[in-house]
Formats: sequence, structure tokens, C-alpha cells
Amino acid sequence: MRIGFIGLGQMGSAIAANLLKAGHEVTVWNRSADKTDALVAAGAARAARPLDAAKGDLVMTMLADDRAVEGVVFGEGGIVGAPALHVGHSTISIALADRLAADSGTGGYVSAPVFGRPPAAAAGKLFVVAAGVEAALDRCEPVFADIGQRTFRIGDKPSAANLVKLSGNFMIMAAVEAMAEAMTLAEKGGVDRQTLLEVLTGTLFGAPVYHIYGEILLEDRFRPAGFAAPLGLKDMTLADTAATSLGAPMPLLGIVRDHLRSVIATEGPDIDWAGIALAVRKSAKL
Amino acid sequence: MRIGFIGLGQMGSAIAANLLKAGHEVTVWNRSADKTDALVAAGAARAARPLDAAKGDLVMTMLADDRAVEGVVFGEGGIVGAPALHVGHSTISIALADRLAADSGTGGYVSAPVFGRPPAAAAGKLFVVAAGVEAALDRCEPVFADIGQRTFRIGDKPSAANLVKLSGNFMIMAAVEAMAEAMTLAEKGGVDRQTLLEVLTGTLFGAPVYHIYGEILLEDRFRPAGFAAPLGLKDMTLADTAATSLGAPMPLLGIVRDHLRSVIATEGPDIDWAGIALAVRKSAKL
Amino acid sequence: MRIGFIGLGQMGSAIAANLLKAGHEVTVWNRSADKTDALVAAGAARAARPLDAAKGDLVMTMLADDRAVEGVVFGEGGIVGAPALHVGHSTISIALADRLAADSGTGGYVSAPVFGRPPAAAAGKLFVVAAGVEAALDRCEPVFADIGQRTFRIGDKPSAANLVKLSGNFMIMAAVEAMAEAMTLAEKGGVDRQTLLEVLTGTLFGAPVYHIYGEILLEDRFRPAGFAAPLGLKDMTLADTAATSLGAPMPLLGIVRDHLRSVIATEGPDIDWAGIALAVRKSAKL
Amino acid sequence: MRIGFIGLGQMGSAIAANLLKAGHEVTVWNRSADKTDALVAAGAARAARPLDAAKGDLVMTMLADDRAVEGVVFGEGGIVGAPALHVGHSTISIALADRLAADSGTGGYVSAPVFGRPPAAAAGKLFVVAAGVEAALDRCEPVFADIGQRTFRIGDKPSAANLVKLSGNFMIMAAVEAMAEAMTLAEKGGVDRQTLLEVLTGTLFGAPVYHIYGEILLEDRFRPAGFAAPLGLKDMTLADTAATSLGAPMPLLGIVRDHLRSVIATEGPDIDWAGIALAVRKSAKL
Repeated sequence: MRIGFIGLGQMGSAIAANLLKAGHEVTVWNRSADKTDALVAAGAARAARPLDAAKGDLVMTMLADDRAVEGVVFGEGGIVGAPALHVGHSTISIALADRLAADSGTGGYVSAPVFGRPPAAAAGKLFVVAAGVEAALDRCEPVFADIGQRTFRIGDKPSAANLVKLSGNFMIMAAVEAMAEAMTLAEKGGVDRQTLLEVLTGTLFGAPVYHIYGEILLEDRFRPAGFAAPLGLKDMTLADTAATSLGAPMPLLGIVRDHLRSVIATEGPDIDWAGIALAVRKSAKL
Repeated sequence: MRIGFIGLGQMGSAIAANLLKAGHEVTVWNRSADKTDALVAAGAARAARPLDAAKGDLVMTMLADDRAVEGVVFGEGGIVGAPALHVGHSTISIALADRLAADSGTGGYVSAPVFGRPPAAAAGKLFVVAAGVEAALDRCEPVFADIGQRTFRIGDKPSAANLVKLSGNFMIMAAVEAMAEAMTLAEKGGVDRQTLLEVLTGTLFGAPVYHIYGEILLEDRFRPAGFAAPLGLKDMTLADTAATSLGAPMPLLGIVRDHLRSVIATEGPDIDWAGIALAVRKSAKL
Repeated sequence: MRIGFIGLGQMGSAIAANLLKAGHEVTVWNRSADKTDALVAAGAARAARPLDAAKGDLVMTMLADDRAVEGVVFGEGGIVGAPALHVGHSTISIALADRLAADSGTGGYVSAPVFGRPPAAAAGKLFVVAAGVEAALDRCEPVFADIGQRTFRIGDKPSAANLVKLSGNFMIMAAVEAMAEAMTLAEKGGVDRQTLLEVLTGTLFGAPVYHIYGEILLEDRFRPAGFAAPLGLKDMTLADTAATSLGAPMPLLGIVRDHLRSVIATEGPDIDWAGIALAVRKSAKL
Repeated sequence: MRIGFIGLGQMGSAIAANLLKAGHEVTVWNRSADKTDALVAAGAARAARPLDAAKGDLVMTMLADDRAVEGVVFGEGGIVGAPALHVGHSTISIALADRLAADSGTGGYVSAPVFGRPPAAAAGKLFVVAAGVEAALDRCEPVFADIGQRTFRIGDKPSAANLVKLSGNFMIMAAVEAMAEAMTLAEKGGVDRQTLLEVLTGTLFGAPVYHIYGEILLEDRFRPAGFAAPLGLKDMTLADTAATSLGAPMPLLGIVRDHLRSVIATEGPDIDWAGIALAVRKSAKL
């Protein structure tokens, strides 16, 4: 297929590379043009404007936040009204997803946020959470298979996929917070963190979230960030905004947002979002 | 082996039955004697006092709380000073576990709390978390294999096993709280709970805790209780007491304790501890 | 002075009436024109557009939220660039206050949010919290004396006054939450709420916030709302946004925001913001 | 009157001194006998055992916690069964107050916890919160007037006074937490703490709790402790225990307990309970 790809950060570059490997004709655009070099060397075309990447079958966007997406869609040289189906992978607000769906024109819009950190993206092992009209999802299906290990269809309202993504990211933060508190309690009581983690993952908690983040917590391995705390705080704030507009009290969300604020303030913005464990440990003087 | 078993609630009865099936010579005692009938019919002997169940190789206790354990150990006709090795399966305080270890006499004491709800106990699929002197743990090992699928050794200080157990129960409550909040957010946004749960367990959250409690939450299946909320609150209060004495702030623990208080007050003491999900749902008018 | 007044809700109408009483020449504008009738009958002029109310010495705005302020300032017929000094009484975001200051043109801009519920506004007993360049504050001083009992100067950066206002509203919600929790504990223990309130206000807590809101809580008098819960939630969300951008963890803020969400969801948007006490009471089945 | 006084810490010594000044015949007892020296020099008699201080009209106890009270009442040489009316000033659990009432014998028991820090005790400006049978309260009334500025009667069930005391201490911690969060937000936004405090105390928050603790927070004056954090945590844990047994969710209480744990862990046990402000400030890197 002829696919445009906009947004070449850690995640986007890895996904676009897999599209190339799968034999697609890929045109890339990035705000800082130098990030396109590696992909162009690997066979991708370089677009001068976002719009020029949206003239094929699909145009996929993987950007940092609402503002960046609004820029490439509605800004000068933006993709709004282009013939390609817009596939939004970014973690954005429910409100923006609704607007993208409403204003998508003939090309159409599908929300398809993903779960997985950069290594999973590079390995084509992402999980894709997709929502939009059925025919559009059918067209995307083979492409999603090239970048991910499984696709979940959430229904025909695109923003529903974004709500699931925000919920999932909240669940990750909740699991990290819980592990951090339990590890702190155990360590202060003389049980080392590794022993606790082995019992947890060997009994009821044998899921990737506990294996992946458990290892990170054991080693206090928060730099370089796989997913930086300010991006995590952005996502948790999107979840908070959804919670306010939908009328859903979420006390656990409040805790993780406070710990993200704290760890950014005390450790700096380059720390991984799992660094909320440091806020917990330090409050106990570990 | 000659094993005494004290405390025949849902969990204890199932464990004792497995000991009989495995060929051990079992003597049972329970405060309400009628609960011993089924086991006696299956071949167990009935002890007149706790002490009479503690004259063999092991005496296992599976009781509701500190007070009950103190009663059968230090009360009239209690097992303190008896020749059998005391294996404590109850979820008790760190302080009481330390006292049982200090006062255990020649018989010795091992803490061996378990993870698993009644069906797992009946199937011999418990996870046993054990701590105590190595020789004592070695003696228990084959018996633990009769009642559980795996044993974790935590070290030579018995109360360390209790701390791990409390940490694990806290982790369960944290996972339930997180799911309840995420499901509430999703449902208020038009995504049904089952869809969210499928995405979660199909991606990063494919662990028993999410499968087991996710199903309970999907169906609001909180009665009859597999583990009643007041017992859950007791355990979370033991964790809170440990957190105070060890100097570990645990904000997530505060949330689940409040929700347990609320659901007991509003729904009654016969509700399952996973019923904290109701506190979340009702606060959002679901 | 020649004063324009924009925004004639409960608070704005009361303030504008006091300006008339004090002898000022007042021109009023409101989105729903019918709300201007009473003031026009009392001697005010009616402006056709916001801009027409901004041709005198001062133009005061008292509106519901950022969007409304942006509309009357930057929208069609807006006051931006008008000769009058803009005095913003609305509780708005730090970011918007900064923008109003930056874009205020020759007229200038002063932030002057107020503390006090509608009865205080009617009695001219508001507290005015003002920030802006000193000469501008000097010009406003006599007018503030007409509508309030005391003016606090916070410095020359207008948004600082808004930050103090948001902090103050947060403090009110915190006091209400604390009283609600303490009253609930006491009542469940057999001490009636009035007795507790008398001890509190008779000892360390003899301040208006406890007298005013304490009476409201004693009588569960949440309708009609003096300050509606959705406006309270808006303010607390502005505080939350400031906390995120400034890097200030605020766990108590998280609690009151959740309780506001809950009480709006369960009781409806017409309830007073002190209605968060209901969320507390109901969680304890009172 | 002939009054025994047991427990000569900062508070007790000040109260006992006022009783001497008022002309009462005072007999004192303290676990560390050297603390009785100053009062004996001022005219008090020294008792050899607690019981010897309980043979007059009243015996007042002002001790650190439940265990200390249980010791002097039910321990060897304890006052249980003595002829004097027992007046308990200590902040103790509801459960222990109920037990003291039930077991008080002919002497009778009144709970009379006080509000006020050591300077208020020395000045005879305490607030006394008293509960017990009316005749007993009538007998105490003139003595309370010698040590305090006002007495509140809570009813005939002694533990009700303790519940009010715990509620009041919780309210103090809640006010400190709220101020700490608001001051942190303001300071990170460029508004100094003193300015914020002036606005607060000059508007809705003009109560002793904000004046007294506001000054402490402005100056970070947490040592020497007027009321040490471990005692504060003890009181908040008593409130938490009451909340559990009465079925009252108290999320704000959870926050202050966590901050007390944190500040004790990081700053040491000699810090004032208002030091929870440090936990807030440090989480924001102030």
C-alpha cells in the first residue's frame, strides 16, 4: 500500500521501518527533517508537507500530543481533506479524536493507539487498539498485522479506542504504583524487592506489566526513559479530563498524577514514567 | 505424617481434606465443633482441645485473625509448648508472627500463609509462602506439596512470610481498584467493561488476578463472598499497621481501605472484598 | 467613574448594583440581555456589544469561565484594545490571565478576583484580591472599596491574584471536606454534628469558613446553590492545571475534585459545591 | 480540692502547676520520678505509686498513649477502684475510654481531653472537652476553670469526648495539609507564602488554627516540637481505628497519616506534627 507516516520519534521510526520491511511504499514527514534521514536511506520518500504524505491509501500519525496532531492536520499544509484514510496512533484526548472523526472528510479517520514500548515497536509486537467504521478497519487490518502482534476492535466510534488506550495507560501506572508501595513496605520490613517480585509474578501477578515494570523497579532503571514522565503525565491528564467530563471519580488516578508531578519536579523531565516509584521510595527514606 | 489442623472455615476445611486424601493422619479441632463432622466422617480424628491436635508432627492453624490465633495458642488448652511444629497459615500481624516465633518452644514455628481462594484450596492449587528455620521448612515441604502447587521460601524469619502475604493481598486490592476505576471511566464513555477487560488481559495484563477478579467485576458477582470484605479490611489494616511501624507511606492502601469501609457500611459485611468496585461505580452513579 | 460591567449572574448583578448605588455611571452588558433589565431600571445604561461598555474608565468582567472571558475580550465586538482599564473579577486560568495582561493594550489589565458568596456581594462585603501595575491598582482602589470590605494587593503580575484566588477556593473545599469527614466520624460514633461544630468553632476553628459552611453542612442545605458544584469543579480543575504546570503535588486537591465529580454525577449539576459533604456522608451510609 | 496528677510531660506539668497556683492540694506521680521535682518544690506532694495519688477528690491523668494509661490504671499500684474520680485528659482510643468508664468503680470516670499546645496549658487557656455523668462533670467544673478558658460538655458517655478530641486533631492536621499544599502551589507560582497567609487569615480563614500553624509553616519552625509527629501519628491512627470500627471512610485522614509517616521517616521523630508541610514541600522540590 501507499502509506504516509508522520511523526518519527522512537515509536514512529520503529513502526515506519516495519512498514518498509513489509513492502509498503512509505512517504515520511517529520517536523525536524533530520529524523527522516534513516528511513529515506532505507527506501522511504520524503514529503515536503504533511499533506504530501496523505495522497496515498493511508496516512498514519504518531505524535506527542494534541497540539502536534492539530498542527499536522489542521495547520498549514495539513492533511485535513486529503484522500488518504487517516490512522491516528497518537495518544490524544477524547475531544480531539471526536473532532478528527467529525472533520475527516472523504478520506475518513480511524483511531488506532498502540500498547508497547520502543522495543516492542521495533519487533513488530505492538498491540493495536482500533476503532472506526468497519470498512475502514478492514482496510487497515493487514497493515496493523505488519506492525503489531494483535489488533483489538473497539467499535465504530474512533474516540472509544483512545479511551481504552488512556484506561490502559492508567492501569500500567496503577500497577507500578502498587508494586512500588508493596516493595517499599517489604524492603522496610527486611524482605528484598526481588523476593517479593518473584512471589508476585509466580502467583497471581504473572503478566507482562509486572515482569517488565517489576524489572525496571528492581534495578531503579529509569534512564534513559522508554516513556518519559512528562508524556506519562500528559496521558494521565487526558484521562483526568475524560474523567471530569464523563463524571468518573478516580482516586487512584489522582495519586499517580501527583507522583508524576513530584518525580518530574525532583528528578527532572528525562526520567521514565515508572520513576513514580522513586516518589514512593523517597517518602519512606529508601 | 501426624498432623493436627485447627480452624475449619472454607479454607481450612478444604486444606484439611487434601491432607486426608494425601494419606496423613489428621486430627481436627474447631471452635464450633459441628464443622469437624464432615472431616471426621472422612477419616479425621476429633480433638477435644487445640492442644490435643498438637501432639503429632505438625499442627497447622488457619484462623480468622490475631485474636483467634492467640486463643488457640496461648488460651486455655492452647498449643503453646506442644511438641508439634506449629505451621501458621492464617493472615496475621507481623507482631503476632514475631511473638509466635519467640514463644514457640521446642516444637518450633513456621509462618506459611497461602494465596488462593476456596476453589484453589479445594483443588490443592494454593501458593504457599513460607518462612522459618530451614530444617523446619524442609519438614513441611512435602505437606505443602499436598495442599499447594508451589511453595516460596522467604527466609528464616517467620514474620517475613506474613509481610509478603499482606503485600500480596494489598496488590490484589490495588488491581481490583484500578480495574474498577478504569471500567467505570470506560463505561461512562460508552465502552463496555467486557471489551476493556479483553484488551487488558490480551495485552499487558494477562495474569490470574485480572482474569479472576475481572470476571467477578464484569458480573458484579460479589455474593456469596469468596473472601468477605471485613476480612479484607482486617488484612489491609494489618498492612496499614505494618506501614506505620515500618515507616512506609502507602496512599493506594488508604484508598482501598476507605472503599472497604464504605462497601461494608453500605452493602453489609457479607459482600466479597472485590465489592470495593461498587464503591467506585456508585460514586459515578453507575 | 464611568464603569462598564460585563456578566450579570448572581455575583455580577450584585456588584453592579453596588456600583450604581455608589454613584458611578454604569453601562452593562450580558449575553442574555434580559438580565440587564433590573439594572437598567435602576439607572444603568445598556451596551449593545461588550466593546460599548469599555469606553469609559474601567470595564469590569465577572464571567463563568475562560471561554466566556475569551468571548467578550477577543470575540466579535470584544473589548480588546478598548481604552478602559480591564478589571477581571472572574476566576480564570493562570494562562488566560497572563494572556489578558500581555494583550491588554493601552487600557491595561488588572486581575481582581473576589472572595464571598452572593449575600456578601450584595452587602458590599466582598474581599478583593488584586494584582497589576501599581498605578492601575491605585485607580481601582476607590471602586474596590465600593464593592468590598477589604482589598489585598498581591503584586504587579495580574495572574498572581488568580493563583491566590484558586488557592483560596481550594482552601475552602479542603475545610468543607475536613468538616464533612469529621462530622461523619462523630455522627457514626453518636456525637451529633452540631455539638462537634460548636466545639470546633469555639476553639481553634472560629473562622468564617467554618461558620458559613458548617451551618450549610449541619442543615444539608445544598440547594439552591450559592456556588454550583460544576463551577467549583471548574475552579478546582484550574488549580489542578496550575499544579501540573508548576510542578506541585496536591493530594488533597485530588480528593475534593473526585468528590465534586461524584456529587455532580449523583446529585445533579444544581447542587452547591459544599455538597461534597454528601459524597462523604453517603460513603458511610448516613 | 485534693487532686492527684499523673503524667508530667510538657502538658501535664503545666496543668499541674496551674492547679497548685489555684490553691489545690496536689499529689503528683510520674514514671520518671525526676520530673516531679519542680512541682514538689512548688508545694506538691509526691506519691510512691499511682494509687497513692488517687485517694483524694480527683485523680487526673495526662499520658502519652493507651498503654501508659492502662499501666497506671490497671497495672501494679494502679488507680482502678480508688475512691477519687478519675479525670482522663490523655488522647486515648475510644475503646479504652469505654473500658475506663465500664471499670471505673465507685470513683467514677470522666473523659476530659484538651485542645491547646504547651504555651496554652501554661497560661491556663486550654479548651476542655468533657463527657461523663452530669454530677461528675459538675464536680470537675471549677477545676477545669482553673486550667482552661472554656469547657465543652459532650454528653454522658465519656468516650464521646475522646471522639471529639480525635476529630479536632484531625481537623488541625487537615488545615495544616491544606495550607501546605496551597502555599506550595502559590510559591511555585511566584506568590510568597506570607502574602497568601495574609489573604487567607484576612478573609475566610481568620481562626487560631491558621494563625498558629500558618506562622509555623512560614518559618519552617518544626523544632523543638510543640507536639511531636509520632504523637500526632498516634492520634491519627486512633482516629483511623475509630473510622474503621464506625464505618466512616476518611480519605483526607489517609493523606495526613501518610505524610506523618513520611516526615517521621525522613526527618526523624523529634519533628513537630506540622512538619507534614515538609513532605508536601519536598515533593515539589521546594
